[in-house]
Amino acid sequence: MPVNVLFAAHEKRWAQYEAPLTAALNDLGINHALSMEIAPDEVDYIVYAPNSPVQDFTPYTRLKAVLNLWAGVEDAVGNKTLKVPYARMVDDEGLTQGMIEWVTGHTLRHHLGMDAHIVNPGNTWNAVAPPVSSERPVGILGLGELGSACGQELRQLGFPVTGWARSEKSVPGIPCLTGEDGLRDVISQSEILILLLPSTPQTANTLNAETLALLPKGAFILNPGRGPLIDDDALLAALDSGQVAHATLDVFRIEPLPQDHQFWSHPKVTVTPHIAADTRPASASCMIAENIRRSEAGELLLHLVDRDAGY
Amino acid sequence: MPVNVLFAAHEKRWAQYEAPLTAALNDLGINHALSMEIAPDEVDYIVYAPNSPVQDFTPYTRLKAVLNLWAGVEDAVGNKTLKVPYARMVDDEGLTQGMIEWVTGHTLRHHLGMDAHIVNPGNTWNAVAPPVSSERPVGILGLGELGSACGQELRQLGFPVTGWARSEKSVPGIPCLTGEDGLRDVISQSEILILLLPSTPQTANTLNAETLALLPKGAFILNPGRGPLIDDDALLAALDSGQVAHATLDVFRIEPLPQDHQFWSHPKVTVTPHIAADTRPASASCMIAENIRRSEAGELLLHLVDRDAGY
Repeated sequence: MPVNVLFAAHEKRWAQYEAPLTAALNDLGINHALSMEIAPDEVDYIVYAPNSPVQDFTPYTRLKAVLNLWAGVEDAVGNKTLKVPYARMVDDEGLTQGMIEWVTGHTLRHHLGMDAHIVNPGNTWNAVAPPVSSERPVGILGLGELGSACGQELRQLGFPVTGWARSEKSVPGIPCLTGEDGLRDVISQSEILILLLPSTPQTANTLNAETLALLPKGAFILNPGRGPLIDDDALLAALDSGQVAHATLDVFRIEPLPQDHQFWSHPKVTVTPHIAADTRPASASCMIAENIRRSEAGELLLHLVDRDAGY
Repeated sequence: MPVNVLFAAHEKRWAQYEAPLTAALNDLGINHALSMEIAPDEVDYIVYAPNSPVQDFTPYTRLKAVLNLWAGVEDAVGNKTLKVPYARMVDDEGLTQGMIEWVTGHTLRHHLGMDAHIVNPGNTWNAVAPPVSSERPVGILGLGELGSACGQELRQLGFPVTGWARSEKSVPGIPCLTGEDGLRDVISQSEILILLLPSTPQTANTLNAETLALLPKGAFILNPGRGPLIDDDALLAALDSGQVAHATLDVFRIEPLPQDHQFWSHPKVTVTPHIAADTRPASASCMIAENIRRSEAGELLLHLVDRDAGY
């Protein structure tokens, strides 16, 4: 008898997940029926987005587990009708690998001056090669898992990388500074500055009028970290003055970025829609399928939410 | 007494080279005078572009060596007035490193769909992350020094890379196919296809109407190799039909690319001005300075041209 898997998320997600989730379940030999419509009392598992219409789990009388599509569980963890095992999404492959690709790609884009070739209405042939990577110092603020992984990749490509973190870190090949003086040192030598700090009261407006003024003139900023790390108005002023050549931003104080925000229309800003580190359907599907296999085999699920701790 | 070094090349090159060449000579402790204007009978060395006005070396009575700024020496090797040692430019750092950066950067650009964010007049926020690199097969035609180096870098980033060469090659981690069947196999599985073959009668029009039709629909083409590898009209037809999503081209049958060529105006073509693998002033200056040091010390120069063989 097949296990019945209800996909309770937006239809846009279904379009992304139907094929890889089916493939992942088949790969593990799980006889299943996967659908967005199954009678509640016939559902064995729910693949779940906390913003789905399913908010009352009471009718799901034979439910064995709920498998979150998101990393965040704060919207569902307090749901008293959710009494079965509840697993969060952990997708290292998609999150870390995606971040490495976004950071490396946009670093090379600015380093190589690609935009002048992508949009070149005058058909200008200016055969001057850019400097090589060893002549382009890069700074990374935040050397957690993501910052370290990106730094290693950029080092491998030849960029001199300097990092900064609130506490001492040891990352092979990457000098890591700390403290206020260290922060000023990193910023003042970085022609490309990458923000990967967490969002805390201490890191808010790390890039402000004062710190932006420390950058080498014409520097590039990449923010795939958190929106509040930047004082938006100070950044716009630094772009207008030429102090900063371009900012490529993946995260914002309000998302989606409001249509009237100046970042959309500013010629020196590139907006990417919070995609740098996102769960990827293929790797996320493998994790969901593995948890269904574990549940059917009576094994403990991966990444179970601790309902008391709230995460 | 300083050695007098004449810089005989275009003023645009002087602007690029004056500082790094001065620094490189100083680093080796060479007391020198570097200028674009020195009386011929006072010149010790000529840093030379074969298209410079200096074509008769007879007045340079105390000349010790000519140090080419270019890799190519075919325009000067037959000059009967050039009787002193003549060295070509070999700039592995600039050439190979530059190629790795261009290929990796534009591969990531197309992989991540950057262009839709760089030019986004509708302010579209479409928060769908691209696949990760492991889901994006890349093919490299030509596995010489440059193709192998680029392939290794893309492998390191997670892309599945398959190569093709006319003769058997062994490159760690990169399956290498040969022969006509192998060529068809590589092309038919490559969502991003990179051309790094040499230009020979056999490789002309490697990408033509027939081989372009083998690509997965919506593939991307990068050509940092040689212009004649592609049948331009067949490529334009494949772009118009949607068979090829975009082509980013660094080399052309005629360079600079003529202003009336359709590649300039085609929305699915990006032209870069033959900069992927260019001599870089900093590393090239080090090589020139090293040769002047060797000459002054009575040592054999690096990369001497064999005037009889013609290269």
